[in-house]
Amino acid sequence: MGRWEPDARGRMIKAALDLFAERGFEQTTAGDIAESAGVTERTFFRHFADKREVLFDGSATLERTACEAIRSAPAGLPPLDAALAGMAAGGDLLQERREHAVRRSLIVAATPALKERELLKLASMTEATTEALRERGAPQRDAALAAHSAVTVFSVAFVHWVSTPDAPGFAACVAETAAALRALM
Amino acid sequence: MGRWEPDARGRMIKAALDLFAERGFEQTTAGDIAESAGVTERTFFRHFADKREVLFDGSATLERTACEAIRSAPAGLPPLDAALAGMAAGGDLLQERREHAVRRSLIVAATPALKERELLKLASMTEATTEALRERGAPQRDAALAAHSAVTVFSVAFVHWVSTPDAPGFAACVAETAAALRALM
Repeated sequence: MGRWEPDARGRMIKAALDLFAERGFEQTTAGDIAESAGVTERTFFRHFADKREVLFDGSATLERTACEAIRSAPAGLPPLDAALAGMAAGGDLLQERREHAVRRSLIVAATPALKERELLKLASMTEATTEALRERGAPQRDAALAAHSAVTVFSVAFVHWVSTPDAPGFAACVAETAAALRALM
Repeated sequence: MGRWEPDARGRMIKAALDLFAERGFEQTTAGDIAESAGVTERTFFRHFADKREVLFDGSATLERTACEAIRSAPAGLPPLDAALAGMAAGGDLLQERREHAVRRSLIVAATPALKERELLKLASMTEATTEALRERGAPQRDAALAAHSAVTVFSVAFVHWVSTPDAPGFAACVAETAAALRALM
């Protein structure tokens, strides 16, 4: 595809997934991804800080969506329920791109450098969730505990959702996982 | 101190804490730490993979202690309680070195590269805890949820414990934080 075509970003993301799956993450360079997407390496680095970031394109949107849902949850909703509403809203985004999410998760799970980056993104989501709960008036410790718990539910639900072909929708997996967590307490 | 003196490892750890606090982490090299501890750079790298690892000297012991406590907890104890017993046992180790833990935590909190490494160590503790709970017969999802929750309690209790001069012992902070988490559920 020529470099004048639209959606260079989308093409780079798709090319990266294809190349990482085919050759492995370590054996793929930013230049390979750019070439396969029909753009220059310079264009690649205008869009992404490094080749890892290509797989975390949706992280900021996911975090923003979750936090907006938390902020707009009914005022009386307890912190954990508000945080879980945020995770379910974030999950709806993933649901729209299930096939991409499944392919991506296999590559991340197989690559230590990507698992590290994923941990950092989850830590960022936990901090943002804590902050959103604080804005709703939750005390610091409750906000931190509810945020950590909600992100735990999100992560555990995610693993089930991507690894189970006939899994229910992501929001349903979040609800099921949250119920299992409450039962453990 | 000369290089023939014992406990080179302990001296390097102390020198690193002093230098990181004085000059900052980025401005301190492995060579600086070695020099200040009276050992060669080669000796430094025989003990530590990099200058970050100096601050994570106790991580493996902490993880092992927590997992041993989980494995030896009474057979009927539910997964979350067994996991929390592990965290309290790990906390006892920290209690013995409170001053070191407090100084160390200030440096970690101020240094993104160290916060990242800390996240990885906590992820490792979560995985090891999950595995220890699996060995006790907990199903995978319950084991993962209980492990994440226990490590969350550990982290939140830790922040309280290091930042509150008159905080109760670490094990008491773990119990208090666990009660707050159960109340949120």
